[in-house]
Amino acid sequence: MPQLRQDLITGKWVIIATERARRPHSFSETKRITPKKTKICPFCYGNEYMTPPEVLAFRDNGKPNSSGWKVRVVPNKFPALIHEGKPELIKNGIYSTMSGVGAHEVIIHSPHHDLLLPLMNEEQVELVLKAYLIRYKELSKDLNLRFIHIIVNHGKEAGASLDHPHSQLFGLPIVPSFVMDELDGSKKYYNKFKKCVYCEIIKNEIRDGGRVIEETDEFIAFEPFASKLPFETWIIPKKHMEHFSDMSESELRDCSKVLRNTMKKIYDGINDPPLNYWLHSAPLHNQYKNYHWHFEIIPKLTTTGGFELGTGTIINTALPEECAKYLRKF
Amino acid sequence: MPQLRQDLITGKWVIIATERARRPHSFSETKRITPKKTKICPFCYGNEYMTPPEVLAFRDNGKPNSSGWKVRVVPNKFPALIHEGKPELIKNGIYSTMSGVGAHEVIIHSPHHDLLLPLMNEEQVELVLKAYLIRYKELSKDLNLRFIHIIVNHGKEAGASLDHPHSQLFGLPIVPSFVMDELDGSKKYYNKFKKCVYCEIIKNEIRDGGRVIEETDEFIAFEPFASKLPFETWIIPKKHMEHFSDMSESELRDCSKVLRNTMKKIYDGINDPPLNYWLHSAPLHNQYKNYHWHFEIIPKLTTTGGFELGTGTIINTALPEECAKYLRKF
Repeated sequence: MPQLRQDLITGKWVIIATERARRPHSFSETKRITPKKTKICPFCYGNEYMTPPEVLAFRDNGKPNSSGWKVRVVPNKFPALIHEGKPELIKNGIYSTMSGVGAHEVIIHSPHHDLLLPLMNEEQVELVLKAYLIRYKELSKDLNLRFIHIIVNHGKEAGASLDHPHSQLFGLPIVPSFVMDELDGSKKYYNKFKKCVYCEIIKNEIRDGGRVIEETDEFIAFEPFASKLPFETWIIPKKHMEHFSDMSESELRDCSKVLRNTMKKIYDGINDPPLNYWLHSAPLHNQYKNYHWHFEIIPKLTTTGGFELGTGTIINTALPEECAKYLRKF
Repeated sequence: MPQLRQDLITGKWVIIATERARRPHSFSETKRITPKKTKICPFCYGNEYMTPPEVLAFRDNGKPNSSGWKVRVVPNKFPALIHEGKPELIKNGIYSTMSGVGAHEVIIHSPHHDLLLPLMNEEQVELVLKAYLIRYKELSKDLNLRFIHIIVNHGKEAGASLDHPHSQLFGLPIVPSFVMDELDGSKKYYNKFKKCVYCEIIKNEIRDGGRVIEETDEFIAFEPFASKLPFETWIIPKKHMEHFSDMSESELRDCSKVLRNTMKKIYDGINDPPLNYWLHSAPLHNQYKNYHWHFEIIPKLTTTGGFELGTGTIINTALPEECAKYLRKF
């Protein structure tokens, strides 16, 4: 019998289609993604002139915008939002528009064209997260921005247009709808039970254990009970923390370790699939004491159609318990 | 300057990325989808035994489950939901599940393996919509179902697994989140302005004209002001109607004409792209007097990444006004 599962935070349902279910190992038949060598890559050493001037770089030597860096952050050359002026709300008859003010940056993970995050050493992953944190803190000061979204698109099927491993950071003048859904849900839960719904989930997942993939002193990685897609994985601090920027240095180190190990299990277990991950952290400039930041990782293993696009309800063809059990082996 | 546009119904924002914008004709370079001949197609004449027994067929002659039909409706062989028993809510520790009770049917558009909807004559499209309507009305009586979703997935990239043109009907025991967003939004609008927000939009679009693609006495097809993706198109009755099943026979005829003509413009203008369309109609067994049923058509021309998946906010790389102007020419 198929099963519907309800997301405890947002109340949204997913369908776990057991009649169409696939065993976790069957997903490992996806094609491995190998970054293609390109003649000229704007993210490789020597081509720093091809990007807008850097806003951050970790380097032992060398001048800004020259080689020698370990992680480099630059504004996106083709930005979805422009970092200038104020976001103004304009009435357009019955409709509303806003000028597209915001930030759009690229975090280049390393100078190596084919060094994927799961194959990096822990120090390098830590530098990537440190770059996230510094830019997050810096842009948090901007009163024109209300939300910061950091993502990785890995593989063409997951929306990547450049192979060289990188993240993108978006500073938005609005709070996006999926985050609003989580904020509303966690507030409702708090009003009813006087508890953070995320802290409750963490406690439950540790006790249950069946959906956990990695656990350290400070973080756990697990597959949510109402996983939307096969191998959906969350990485979340055990301690209650609203904002990504609330992390201490030792927590950042621990988070890097869990992120790398989780990505390595996905890399080994399902043959380096195309994937996306993103950060959900509380909106800026306000207290959201019921929210709890986390990363969400979703491999792109299936194609969504009119059912998913039209309803927002996803038909998941794998059981999260089976996926977690499978990944733990790697 | 990029622009954010707010959906008047749900309040959700989209980003119109003018810096990354593409001219409408550039989308016509997508590959044309031609249904592949397969040795044995379960939806072709002579293979009726390969599907579960039909629940509806229009035929001039022949016995049930034999050839001679014009449109045929069968239960899905690999259903996402099962049409038996009652949907029971089960507590599973802190989480909730529900048994996957619902309907999942396939509407085979015609016996012809490669006759796409935009290439059909109007009578055949009318028969397809008539099949939607009859099954919609029949399943509406089932008190276990709360919402009926009808979709088309055209092309592999849009989630189609069989080439022979067909629709799918899902009877759901829940109201899905995107429909809830529209219901909540239209209720709020009504409470504030004492008007149906959809009727307001229709009036506005007819007056403005810039985003309209087709207009008849009873229906219009237009690109929404806050289009999520290039060439998103809605088909909506001008008269206020909550439920798809409220349509009269003459309205059904008019709707078929507009659906066919709009699909033909997309077929000709952007070279038969992969696409999805779906029906949004009010949930069952209750009055939703502020809701207004419609079809949403979205060609699959871009790849979504971690930004869209993580935020629910879409970066649209085309202006709906330009897309509508382009489609009107065909």
